[in-house]
Amino acid sequence: MTDKAYALFEEQQTARGIDVEAVKRKIKQFKIETPSWGYGDSGTRFKVFQKEGVPRDPFEKMEDAAIVHRLTGLAPTVAIHIPWDKVGDYGKLRSHAESLGLQIGAVNPNLFQEDDYMLGSVTNSDAAVRRKATDHLLECVDIAKETGSRDLSLWFADGTNYPGQGDIRQRKNWMQEALSEMYKALTKDMRMLIEYKCFEPGFYHTDLADWGMAYNMALKLGDQAQVLVDTGHHLPGANIEHIVAYLIDEKRLGGFHFNSRKYADDDLIVGTVNPYELFLIFYQILNGAADSEEGIRRGVGSIAYMLDQSHNIEQKIPAMIRSVLNVQSAYAKALLIDHREVAAAQEKNDVLAAEHAIRKASEFDVTPLLHAVREEEGLPIDPMEAYLTSSYPEEIKARGKGGASW
Amino acid sequence: MTDKAYALFEEQQTARGIDVEAVKRKIKQFKIETPSWGYGDSGTRFKVFQKEGVPRDPFEKMEDAAIVHRLTGLAPTVAIHIPWDKVGDYGKLRSHAESLGLQIGAVNPNLFQEDDYMLGSVTNSDAAVRRKATDHLLECVDIAKETGSRDLSLWFADGTNYPGQGDIRQRKNWMQEALSEMYKALTKDMRMLIEYKCFEPGFYHTDLADWGMAYNMALKLGDQAQVLVDTGHHLPGANIEHIVAYLIDEKRLGGFHFNSRKYADDDLIVGTVNPYELFLIFYQILNGAADSEEGIRRGVGSIAYMLDQSHNIEQKIPAMIRSVLNVQSAYAKALLIDHREVAAAQEKNDVLAAEHAIRKASEFDVTPLLHAVREEEGLPIDPMEAYLTSSYPEEIKARGKGGASW
Amino acid sequence: MTDKAYALFEEQQTARGIDVEAVKRKIKQFKIETPSWGYGDSGTRFKVFQKEGVPRDPFEKMEDAAIVHRLTGLAPTVAIHIPWDKVGDYGKLRSHAESLGLQIGAVNPNLFQEDDYMLGSVTNSDAAVRRKATDHLLECVDIAKETGSRDLSLWFADGTNYPGQGDIRQRKNWMQEALSEMYKALTKDMRMLIEYKCFEPGFYHTDLADWGMAYNMALKLGDQAQVLVDTGHHLPGANIEHIVAYLIDEKRLGGFHFNSRKYADDDLIVGTVNPYELFLIFYQILNGAADSEEGIRRGVGSIAYMLDQSHNIEQKIPAMIRSVLNVQSAYAKALLIDHREVAAAQEKNDVLAAEHAIRKASEFDVTPLLHAVREEEGLPIDPMEAYLTSSYPEEIKARGKGGASW
Amino acid sequence: MTDKAYALFEEQQTARGIDVEAVKRKIKQFKIETPSWGYGDSGTRFKVFQKEGVPRDPFEKMEDAAIVHRLTGLAPTVAIHIPWDKVGDYGKLRSHAESLGLQIGAVNPNLFQEDDYMLGSVTNSDAAVRRKATDHLLECVDIAKETGSRDLSLWFADGTNYPGQGDIRQRKNWMQEALSEMYKALTKDMRMLIEYKCFEPGFYHTDLADWGMAYNMALKLGDQAQVLVDTGHHLPGANIEHIVAYLIDEKRLGGFHFNSRKYADDDLIVGTVNPYELFLIFYQILNGAADSEEGIRRGVGSIAYMLDQSHNIEQKIPAMIRSVLNVQSAYAKALLIDHREVAAAQEKNDVLAAEHAIRKASEFDVTPLLHAVREEEGLPIDPMEAYLTSSYPEEIKARGKGGASW
Repeated sequence: MTDKAYALFEEQQTARGIDVEAVKRKIKQFKIETPSWGYGDSGTRFKVFQKEGVPRDPFEKMEDAAIVHRLTGLAPTVAIHIPWDKVGDYGKLRSHAESLGLQIGAVNPNLFQEDDYMLGSVTNSDAAVRRKATDHLLECVDIAKETGSRDLSLWFADGTNYPGQGDIRQRKNWMQEALSEMYKALTKDMRMLIEYKCFEPGFYHTDLADWGMAYNMALKLGDQAQVLVDTGHHLPGANIEHIVAYLIDEKRLGGFHFNSRKYADDDLIVGTVNPYELFLIFYQILNGAADSEEGIRRGVGSIAYMLDQSHNIEQKIPAMIRSVLNVQSAYAKALLIDHREVAAAQEKNDVLAAEHAIRKASEFDVTPLLHAVREEEGLPIDPMEAYLTSSYPEEIKARGKGGASW
Repeated sequence: MTDKAYALFEEQQTARGIDVEAVKRKIKQFKIETPSWGYGDSGTRFKVFQKEGVPRDPFEKMEDAAIVHRLTGLAPTVAIHIPWDKVGDYGKLRSHAESLGLQIGAVNPNLFQEDDYMLGSVTNSDAAVRRKATDHLLECVDIAKETGSRDLSLWFADGTNYPGQGDIRQRKNWMQEALSEMYKALTKDMRMLIEYKCFEPGFYHTDLADWGMAYNMALKLGDQAQVLVDTGHHLPGANIEHIVAYLIDEKRLGGFHFNSRKYADDDLIVGTVNPYELFLIFYQILNGAADSEEGIRRGVGSIAYMLDQSHNIEQKIPAMIRSVLNVQSAYAKALLIDHREVAAAQEKNDVLAAEHAIRKASEFDVTPLLHAVREEEGLPIDPMEAYLTSSYPEEIKARGKGGASW
Repeated sequence: MTDKAYALFEEQQTARGIDVEAVKRKIKQFKIETPSWGYGDSGTRFKVFQKEGVPRDPFEKMEDAAIVHRLTGLAPTVAIHIPWDKVGDYGKLRSHAESLGLQIGAVNPNLFQEDDYMLGSVTNSDAAVRRKATDHLLECVDIAKETGSRDLSLWFADGTNYPGQGDIRQRKNWMQEALSEMYKALTKDMRMLIEYKCFEPGFYHTDLADWGMAYNMALKLGDQAQVLVDTGHHLPGANIEHIVAYLIDEKRLGGFHFNSRKYADDDLIVGTVNPYELFLIFYQILNGAADSEEGIRRGVGSIAYMLDQSHNIEQKIPAMIRSVLNVQSAYAKALLIDHREVAAAQEKNDVLAAEHAIRKASEFDVTPLLHAVREEEGLPIDPMEAYLTSSYPEEIKARGKGGASW
Repeated sequence: MTDKAYALFEEQQTARGIDVEAVKRKIKQFKIETPSWGYGDSGTRFKVFQKEGVPRDPFEKMEDAAIVHRLTGLAPTVAIHIPWDKVGDYGKLRSHAESLGLQIGAVNPNLFQEDDYMLGSVTNSDAAVRRKATDHLLECVDIAKETGSRDLSLWFADGTNYPGQGDIRQRKNWMQEALSEMYKALTKDMRMLIEYKCFEPGFYHTDLADWGMAYNMALKLGDQAQVLVDTGHHLPGANIEHIVAYLIDEKRLGGFHFNSRKYADDDLIVGTVNPYELFLIFYQILNGAADSEEGIRRGVGSIAYMLDQSHNIEQKIPAMIRSVLNVQSAYAKALLIDHREVAAAQEKNDVLAAEHAIRKASEFDVTPLLHAVREEEGLPIDPMEAYLTSSYPEEIKARGKGGASW
C-alpha cells in the first residue's frame, strides 16, 4: 500500500507541476535542533512532575537526543543551556556528542535562576549584577568556541511586575550595553540570536517585549545579530508569519524556537494547536527563498530551526520525536505550494483563488512522501513505533526518577 | 492637615447627598480574608526566589496574618490550604489563630501536587485516583468542621494539554460525581465555593473553564454551592463586573479571589494593573445590595472577599498590607457612587451623564476618609509605615530562608 | 487518477477499521444552511464595497442560494433576516424557494437597524421600545409559521459602551421577559436558538455575552430553547469545542453560525484561519453522537449547521461555495477518527497516542472521498470550477451594482 | 468650598515637594487636537445612527470645535481628513478656523473609501491604484502647506483578509516606495506621523501592523518621519506605555490618537475603560521629559496629542468636551508624580515603594487644581455644564439630521 500510495502521490504532484525529486531533496536537507532541556523534567509553577528515565547529566541528554536523530534523521544538533549543561570539559561533551553522530548547537545562557537575578540580570539596577550577567554572556561565547557552536540564543527573563518598578528606558540602555559587549566577543562566523517575549516571568513589562525591540537591538549591534522567533512569545492574535516575512525581507530572521500555544506561552508540542499556522510560517520562508540566491543565503538559508518546549506530562523522547515529525510534515506540505499559481491569483486580485492555492497545499497527505524519503535514507518508516518497540525505553528506566530539570 | 482634609471631604460628600457616617460604618464592616500561602514563597515556573523571614509552618503564617490584621483592621480571617497547612491538631491551630485575634477562613483542598494527579484529580480516568481525590475533599470538609470554617474554596487544576487527551464530557460527569458526594457531607451552614479558570496548568482545556461551568455545577448541587470569581482567571477582555452582576442576580456569587493581571493569571497585587476594574466590581456589588434586603442577605451579604496572589518578588507582609488597603480603597470609592444620580441618567438615556456619575466617584481621594476611619478604630493612620518601622521585619529574619512555599 | 485515488483511500481506511460506506452515507446526509444576507453586500465600518451582480431582493437571493445547492448538494435551506428579507407574501417566497429545490431555514429577527434600538431593543430602558422589539420577535414567529421554519435564530446587538450606561441586572431581566413572551408563542416543533457574543456593537458589555448567559436563559425558558454557537463570538483563546461538548452533554446545543476569526468577530470564510479548530468541533459532535441514540436524537441530530459570514471583498456565490465545501471537508475528516483508538489511549493515559489518534484523522486527504460522494450524487466533482465556468456569473451581471446590503 | 479645596491641595502637594505653580504652568501649556470627523456621525458595521445637529460641512465642524476650545481652553487645533474635509479653497477654511480662534492641525489622507482601494491603496497589486494613492498623499502634503499644518497623519487600511491573498513582502516594499515619494515632498518643518494597527479592516494581516513596522519605516525615511500611537490599535495585553517609553528613547514618538478600548479598536471616549493606562502613558512621557533638554525638544516637546474616537451613541460635542477633560485630568495627575521618590525606590530595589510612588499620584483628586487653572484662564469651572446650559445645543438643531459622516 505504501508503494502504491507514493506512486499516486508522485503522479498527482507531477501533474500539478511540482518537482517531487526536488521536494525530496529539500526535505532531506531540512533539520531541526532539539534542546537538551527538553529531555529533562519541566513543569508549571504548580508542580514539576518527575518522570522515570530522565537523563541525569548532559551526557545522557546527548544520548537521548542521538536516539531521536537516529530514528528520524532530523535532529543532528542539540542546543545547550548554561549552567544546566555546565560540564568541566566542553571538549569532552562535544566529543561525546560527535561519537553519537551529533553536533552541539546553539548555546543558551541562563540568566534567571540565581537569586541575584530576581529583579533583572543585564537590566538590573545593581551594576554588580549587570557585570555578573554580562560575564556569563561572555562565558557562553567562550563555551560556544569550545563546542563549535555558531549560534548564541539569548532569552532574557528581565522585566518588571509593576508600573514604576524599573526605569524602562534606563533598562533598555543597560540591555544594549551588555549585548554590545557580548557582540564584540563574537568571532566572525558566530551569530547572536535575540529572542523576545511579551510577558512571563515579568508580568508588567519585559525588556525585549516584541520582535520590534529585538530587531532594533540587532540593527544597533550589527549583521551578526539576528532575531529569534519563539512561536509562543506573542500576544493573542499576533500574525507570526507576517513577522517572519518581515524579518526575512530585512535579512534579520535568525531562527525559531518552535512550540504550540493556545493561551500564553504554553510550550506545547509544535503543530498540535494550530497546525495551519506552522504551515503558513513555512510558506513565508519558502516564498522568501524563492526570490533570490541572496534570499537563500542570507535571509533564509541560515535560519536555525529549533524546538523549545516543556514536556510537562509527556514522555520526553516520544514527545521530541513527535515534535520533529510535526515540523517536517508542515515543511513538506509547504513545499507543495505552487508559487506561480499563487502569484497568478494575486496578480488578478482573485482573493478566493489565491487563498485556495495556499490552503490546498496544506491538505495534501504527505505521509507517502515522507515514507519514501525515510526509506531512501534508511530510516524507519514510523520513527515513533520504532522507538516504542525498541529496548531504549526499558533501558533508561535504570536512571530512575529525579533526573535533570529546570 | 488630616483633620482639615477630612472636614472638607465630609463637607463635599454631604453636599452631594452622601451619608458619610453610613459610608464609614460600611467601611468598618468590610473585611478581606488573606491566604496563608500568600505569606510563603511562591514563584513562576522559571524560579521560586526564597525570601528571608518567610514563615516555616502554619502557626507562623497565622502570626504574620495577625500583624496584617492588627495594623489594618481589615483581615480577621485566614484561608488555609490542605495539605500545605496540614497539622496534627486543627483545634490547636484554631486556638492559636484565635489567640492572635483571627479566625480560620476558607479551607482550600489541594489536588495538584501529587504525582497521582498529573492527569487529573476528580476527573482522572483512573477510578482509584478519583476516589483518592474525593476522599481529600471529604477530609477538607472535616477539617472545616474542626476549624469552624464556613467556606470550602474549590479550585481544580484538572484539565488537558492536547485535543483528545481526555474525554471532555466524561470528565465533566466525573467532576459532578465528586462534587455531589462532597456536597452531601456539608453541614447546613457550610458552603462550597466553586472556582473556574480558563487555562493553566491545563493548556488545552480546563474542566471548569468559565463562570458558566461553575455556575451550572452549583445549580446541580444546590443552594449551598456558589461561584468563586478569581479576577485573574478570565480570557483577555472579559467583563468581570458583568459576570459579578449576573451572579448576584442569580444569587450565586459566593466570593472572590482578588489579584491583578495584565496578561494571563499573573497573580499580582490587587489594584495595581487596572484599579478602575476593581472599583467597577464593587459598583455592581453595591448596586445589587441597594436592591433589597434579600439582595443583601443572600446575594451580597455573604460574599467572601479573599485574596489569592503570588508575591514572587515582593516582601510578603508588606505585599499583603498593600493588597488589603487597595481593596479597601476601591470599596470606599464605590461607596461614594450616587445611585440615584446614575439611575436618573440611565432613565433619560443620557449616556455621558451615566458614565460620568460612576467614574467621578472613582476619582475622589478617599485618603482623608480612610484616615478618619482608622483613627476612630484605633488603628495606625498609615499601616504600611507602621509595619516598616515596627520591630517585626527584623524579628522574623531569625526564621532564615527556605520557609513555606508551594 | 480519481478512481485510483479513491480505491487507495478506501483500502487505507478499511485497513484502519473505518466503514467507508457508512462515512459516505453520513457525508450525504450532512447539510449546511446558507444565510440570505451572505449573498448581499456587506463591509466594515469603514466601507461597504458594492459588487456587481448582487441580488436585489429576497427572491434573487434564493436563486443564488439555489445555485450553491445545485452545485454542492450541501445547502438545501436558506436562513432569512427580517426585515432584510421582508416580503408582502411569505407563502410566495416559500414557493419560490421550493421551486428552486430549497426550503426556508431559520428566521432571524433584526433588532439593530432602527434608530429606536440605538441603546437597546428588548433591554432598552424605554418600555415602548421593548414592546416594539418584542412585537418584532412575535412577528418573526408568525413568519416562521408561514415559511415552515423550525428555528428562530436570536442575536441581540443589545449592550452598552460605558460602565454605568445601563443597569446590567435590570437589562438581564428585561431580556428574560421578552424571550419568555416569545417562547410562549412557539408551536411545539419550533425552537429558539439563542446566540451570544462577547462584544460589538456594544463595546463595554453585551447583554448575552457568553454561552453561559445564553444557556442559562435557555434553562429558564424550556426545552425548546437552545444555544447557538457563532464561532466568531468568543474572546481570544476560548476553547470553542469545549463549549460545544459541554452543551451537547447538557442537551442544549441548538446549532452553529460558522465563520473564521483571527482577532475579533472577523466573519471570514469558515475554515480559512484555523481549519483544525473546525475539525475539533466536529470531533466533539461525533464523540457526542457516538454515545447513544439519545445523543443522536436530542443533542446532536438536531444541530442546525449554518453559516454567518461577511464576504466584504470576495465574490459572493464563490465565497459561499468555498464555505460549504470547507465545512464538508472538516466534517469528512472528523468521520475518519477511530473513536476506539482514542478511547484506548485515553484509558491508558497515553497522552501522545490520544493526541495523535485525533490529529492524524485531520491529515488524511479526503478529496478522493468527496469526489466519490459527488459522483454518486450526480454532482460536479469540482463545484467551484463548475460555477466559474457556468453562465451564471455572467448572467447576474445584469443586476448591476447596489443590490441588497446590510 | 472650591477655594478651600484648592488651598488644601496646594498645601498637600507643596508638603510633598511638588511645585504647584510649575504644575499649573504645564497644564496651561498642554493642548489636545480634536478630529473634525469626531463631530460627525459614525457607527459600527451594523448601523450608523444619525444625530440631530451634526455639522453639514467642514466649516460647521470648525464651529463645533471652536466651542470645545472656548469652553475648555484645551483644543486649539483641529485635524482634518481628506476628502471628508475637502473644500475648494483651503485658505478659506483656514481663515474660518482662525477667525474662530483655531488652527488647522494634522492632515489625514483617506485611502479606504474608494472602490479602487478595496484590496489596498499604496500596497495594491495594481500599479495604477498605487499611483493614484500616492498622488493623494502628495495632494495632502500640498493641502498641509495651504492649511499651515505641520503634521501629516498616515493611517492605511491596507491589509489582507486571507493567507496568500497578497505577497506580504512585496506589499511592504510598495508601502516604502509610496512613503519615500511622499517624504521627499515634505518641507523641512513638516512631519510624517506613521500610524500602525494590528487589524481591521484587514482581518488576516495589516501592512503596518505594529509599532515596530511603523518605526522601521520611519528609520528608512528620515528624521521627519515619526511613529503615531493610536491607543486602540494593539493586541490584547499590549503594554502601550512601554512602547511609548521606547519610542521616546529612540526619538521617534510623533504623537497619539487617544481613545479607549476593552476588546478591539473600540474607539470609545479616552479615559473611560482603564484610566490608569492613560496616566501611565503620561508617566513615561514626563519621565522622558525629565531627562534632558534634548528630551524635551526632540522626543517629547513635539508630541502631537490628538483624539481619534467614534461617538456612535453619544452627543458629539459633549463627547469631545468629556474627552479633552479626561486627557487633561490624567496629565495633571501624572504631573504629581515625585520622580525623585520613584528613582530612590528603584535604586533600592524597593518594588512596593516604587509601585506605590507612581500609583498614589494617580489617586489625588485634581479637581481643585483644574478648577484653579480654569479660573486663572477665565474659563468656565465646569465646561460640560457650561455647554449644556448654553444656547448652542439648541441652535445646532436647526442643522437637522444627516450631517457629515464616514
